[in-house]
Amino acid sequence: MSSARELFAHNGFQNTSIRAVAADAGVDAALVHHYYGTKQQLFAAATELPVDPMVVLGPLRDAPVEQLGRILPELLLPLWDSQAGTGLIAAMRSMLTGTEVPLARSFFRDIVVAELASRIDVPAGTGVLRAEFTASQLMGIVVARYIVGLEPLASLPGDQVVAMVAPTLQRYLTGDLPDRLGR
Amino acid sequence: MSSARELFAHNGFQNTSIRAVAADAGVDAALVHHYYGTKQQLFAAATELPVDPMVVLGPLRDAPVEQLGRILPELLLPLWDSQAGTGLIAAMRSMLTGTEVPLARSFFRDIVVAELASRIDVPAGTGVLRAEFTASQLMGIVVARYIVGLEPLASLPGDQVVAMVAPTLQRYLTGDLPDRLGR
Repeated sequence: MSSARELFAHNGFQNTSIRAVAADAGVDAALVHHYYGTKQQLFAAATELPVDPMVVLGPLRDAPVEQLGRILPELLLPLWDSQAGTGLIAAMRSMLTGTEVPLARSFFRDIVVAELASRIDVPAGTGVLRAEFTASQLMGIVVARYIVGLEPLASLPGDQVVAMVAPTLQRYLTGDLPDRLGR
Repeated sequence: MSSARELFAHNGFQNTSIRAVAADAGVDAALVHHYYGTKQQLFAAATELPVDPMVVLGPLRDAPVEQLGRILPELLLPLWDSQAGTGLIAAMRSMLTGTEVPLARSFFRDIVVAELASRIDVPAGTGVLRAEFTASQLMGIVVARYIVGLEPLASLPGDQVVAMVAPTLQRYLTGDLPDRLGR
């Protein structure tokens, strides 16, 4: 597991293979597969995420792009508000402090942003930035609602948070961009 | 200074007086005033903010409400991108970790949110929540751009970040609210 943490943090998610983690740990790759499953699941374990990110992000693949702004927080808010969410928020928080920032960067860039960007790359070349602004609003909700605990936002029913942020997310995902961004 | 940190963290900004800090430290209130100036300045020093929040938030008071969504990030992005910004981001980051969360909460609730909420309280009772969603997007930019360092967002010229988030902020500040929020 320390091999996995180190390699993911150092080389990022995309550039780290299960084979490399196994080699670094001096065990057989099949053994890593057997115990941890997919690379996403290994990553979730390495970062102590209590949930496989793909369980959350998977349903997005079948969702129409013009509804992602609503569906994304509809998936995330109940998760964040759940028991598992407490662990998720703790993991996120420790990823933002000090030495774990490369892990956080890899998580967002290689999993969250990569999952979204190709579907919203209109005009071509804008997808990654669209996904990053989307992520920024979602991170901001995590910080304001769960970490800082600003009231009444922290106690607002999840569906009202969804209703409030959905138009923001949809604009980032598919809306018009400022002049130079939409070049 | 440790008295100030402790009292601000424990009682919040509003409920902490310079007199109380001076009493706790066993010195005269006039001395605290002399060395630190206003309560905001004392707070800035206690939280190691390299900038008096009022220097930034002050100009907002004269800005028309319907332009705040643009003016707010126009004030903040150049500050965050500056030398002083490095210290600001570091202060923000340490406020989000562990024991300093009450200080962060007090900072946002009693200074940032309080500064905005009364001006955008339409319909009555929604101003605090409007300000908190606004703050959530700004916090998200801090996390994504400066702490996690997601590229290309981290290197995007500040004015393009402003152009991208301004409509989001303006909607939170003065736009229509979802049904139950705007009750």
